[in-house]
Amino acid sequence: MNVRDYVESNASGFITALKQWLAIPSISADPAHWPDVGRSAQWLANYLSETGFPAVELWEPNAVFAEWPAADPGAPKVLVYGHHDVQPAEPLDEWTSPPFEPAEVDGRILARGASDDKGQVLFHSLGIRACLAASGQTAPPVTIKLLVEGEEESGSVHFADLVRHNKQRLAADVIVITDTGMWAADVPSMCTGMRGLAEAEVHISGPTRDLHSGSFGGGVPNPLHAMASLLAGLHDADGRIAVPGFYDRVVELTGAERELLAKLPFDEKGWLADAGNSGAAYGEKGFTTLERIWARPTAEVNGMWGGHTGSGGKTIIPKQAHAKITFRLVADQEPREVVAAFREYVRANTPAGLEAVVESRGGVRPCRSPIDSPAVLAGRRAMRRAFDREVLFTKEGGSGPEADLDEIIGAPLVFIGTGLNADRIHAPNEHIDISRLLRGAEASAYLWEELAAISADLT
Amino acid sequence: MNVRDYVESNASGFITALKQWLAIPSISADPAHWPDVGRSAQWLANYLSETGFPAVELWEPNAVFAEWPAADPGAPKVLVYGHHDVQPAEPLDEWTSPPFEPAEVDGRILARGASDDKGQVLFHSLGIRACLAASGQTAPPVTIKLLVEGEEESGSVHFADLVRHNKQRLAADVIVITDTGMWAADVPSMCTGMRGLAEAEVHISGPTRDLHSGSFGGGVPNPLHAMASLLAGLHDADGRIAVPGFYDRVVELTGAERELLAKLPFDEKGWLADAGNSGAAYGEKGFTTLERIWARPTAEVNGMWGGHTGSGGKTIIPKQAHAKITFRLVADQEPREVVAAFREYVRANTPAGLEAVVESRGGVRPCRSPIDSPAVLAGRRAMRRAFDREVLFTKEGGSGPEADLDEIIGAPLVFIGTGLNADRIHAPNEHIDISRLLRGAEASAYLWEELAAISADLT
Repeated sequence: MNVRDYVESNASGFITALKQWLAIPSISADPAHWPDVGRSAQWLANYLSETGFPAVELWEPNAVFAEWPAADPGAPKVLVYGHHDVQPAEPLDEWTSPPFEPAEVDGRILARGASDDKGQVLFHSLGIRACLAASGQTAPPVTIKLLVEGEEESGSVHFADLVRHNKQRLAADVIVITDTGMWAADVPSMCTGMRGLAEAEVHISGPTRDLHSGSFGGGVPNPLHAMASLLAGLHDADGRIAVPGFYDRVVELTGAERELLAKLPFDEKGWLADAGNSGAAYGEKGFTTLERIWARPTAEVNGMWGGHTGSGGKTIIPKQAHAKITFRLVADQEPREVVAAFREYVRANTPAGLEAVVESRGGVRPCRSPIDSPAVLAGRRAMRRAFDREVLFTKEGGSGPEADLDEIIGAPLVFIGTGLNADRIHAPNEHIDISRLLRGAEASAYLWEELAAISADLT
Repeated sequence: MNVRDYVESNASGFITALKQWLAIPSISADPAHWPDVGRSAQWLANYLSETGFPAVELWEPNAVFAEWPAADPGAPKVLVYGHHDVQPAEPLDEWTSPPFEPAEVDGRILARGASDDKGQVLFHSLGIRACLAASGQTAPPVTIKLLVEGEEESGSVHFADLVRHNKQRLAADVIVITDTGMWAADVPSMCTGMRGLAEAEVHISGPTRDLHSGSFGGGVPNPLHAMASLLAGLHDADGRIAVPGFYDRVVELTGAERELLAKLPFDEKGWLADAGNSGAAYGEKGFTTLERIWARPTAEVNGMWGGHTGSGGKTIIPKQAHAKITFRLVADQEPREVVAAFREYVRANTPAGLEAVVESRGGVRPCRSPIDSPAVLAGRRAMRRAFDREVLFTKEGGSGPEADLDEIIGAPLVFIGTGLNADRIHAPNEHIDISRLLRGAEASAYLWEELAAISADLT
């Protein structure tokens, strides 16, 4: 029986199981639901055991780890990451059916978590079984490790520690991310990079007290002016960041990457409207909007304050000015180096008579999966086979726990997901098309084969 | 009997009267003391009647108006402005004697209000009597009108209305300001200008909600960046204000004015230290510190805010940014015109996709008394005769109710005062040297003569 036939003929049981799981309200952000998150983990552990995983463990807090070794101990090891906790369901009255009573409507499953991320985690179990059925083997062609956390929707606060602590158990040659999506139902795609982050807070101090601007105005420097100049100077006229050295490590997009990004049918007007912006595209010169938000580093002032901010006037030269700034980074920028370059920029641009201090809580490294890397190409072939269409590439503007995995495990990331923006994740009436779930299971089945086929490139 | 002899021989009675007045705690900022402000007004009204003023009136709220017509109805009319309310006395434990039990120590009177402004108001009564004694007349050589308000230390909130309402009664050819001082005990001087003020608040709006900087950063304009650029662009590299048209009406300092300002023994290091600044002089290129703070217009950001200003980070592109700005103006700048120019500057410099709104509560016109104007020269001769020294000129960086007088009455301002910065006005242990009060009385006596002598230039 080939993969597609196996998936189709086992779809009904798979959907029944998924609905059971979706009925558990595993809302990690709400302490009242923490017992449900525990039940959800236990459900998954049982289900993976039934699927055939020889080793299934519950890791505190509410993560599930399962491992199914390949017959060949030299085969590549693949770590699959996902999460089983879900967003809160409010506002409840906007749901057409109760969020934790999964409904099947027009070929879709409607429930909180259907797309993000239970549906996409679970299709791998069907995919693995399809792979075994098609090959006639009892073990997968690569060692598969599943790590499904229960805190993603509440900030993955313990995740990095969990991964660090279990680094040996999690060791892998490829990391597959399920918590991802594709461009559109008829445009299968894979994410190939996420921006990182560097964070800084600037404090500029001048006079020891707020000064009367009648007595001192024009004769002493004003910390707010200095702050405005510092922040205004962050960008040049072309929208490039003017901090010396900032771009030194930036890996530029290749011609092939830009061509593939340009193939995505992007509705720029709609995107701008979603940002509440009625103007034209904006940003660094020489790049498209998708390139700007996915593949170019940025500097954003997230907050600034100083002096009199209450009602009415106060004719002062304030003693201090403050700003919070984050840089979105792209590979291979290092948060530490970016903060150091910014610190030097502030030092060099603070007028005499004022004092500036830069504080930083660090950042998150960007990650990047080159589109011509063997693992990404294997994933692309798997997606191609499942969808019978060309598979394009996307990137993501922000970072999640994937960056921790990338950094701690040190293996390339391959994003395999079939969710859509249209699935209304985090919103009322979250859903996923059953047909897309099944294509995901197919892609999963092909993925193990494809990765086994390039084992020499991976191990 | 000449003026000096009259002043000296009547000093003791004058000081006794002043002490009586100083014993009344006329603290206008404290409602509990409003009855005292009323008593203080009544005391002054009685005293002026005793001095010989034919007409004395109490004007609500707690202002005293007195008029002593010249014998010649065609003689110039001079309006003297001062105030009889005082600052709060706290912290009380820093006073070496109780603030409202006037003490005489080392030739000084120590009490709240001794210098600001009761002592300086009252020396005019002695001055007028000295003038009459020296001339042997029963009426002064010019018509003298006294307006002594009771709300100066609480913002002169009703003053402009009071002046507007009594414009005819207050009509004058010269306005003499008592609420002023001189450079140093051995450097008599007169103020010849006060900066005005124009006030504006800028609000920049972008997205309809705070946007996630991972999803939108780099692709839409950030209101905080736009605000930083607007504020940074207010000044050019030479510290000049870059708002087009801003300097159009500025009356430049003359060579003579600059020479006289340069004669003032200014302790720049001490002044900077008072501002909590250990650096070098700062400000508009081509001007000294005194010129910058007295005779040059400025733009000061008094406050700015927007985005996340609490603890921790928040990776947003905030939806709004705000700033409060005041411009210090010099003659002949008009607050309304400056606000209009700023509005245009903001309009021209707001990037597409953002919206900026400028609000303004208006401002205060600057005032200027040219050092070669007949009234100022008459005042200078009077001060010269009282102090037997060259009289220099100063200016003030801020504005008080004098600007209202100037604007509503429409007469030149002459500043005659003998207070010093060292008198500790607004601070514990306020005091004034009796000898300086008596020099003030002399200057007052000469002033009426000097103004009468140039009546053709004034009326």
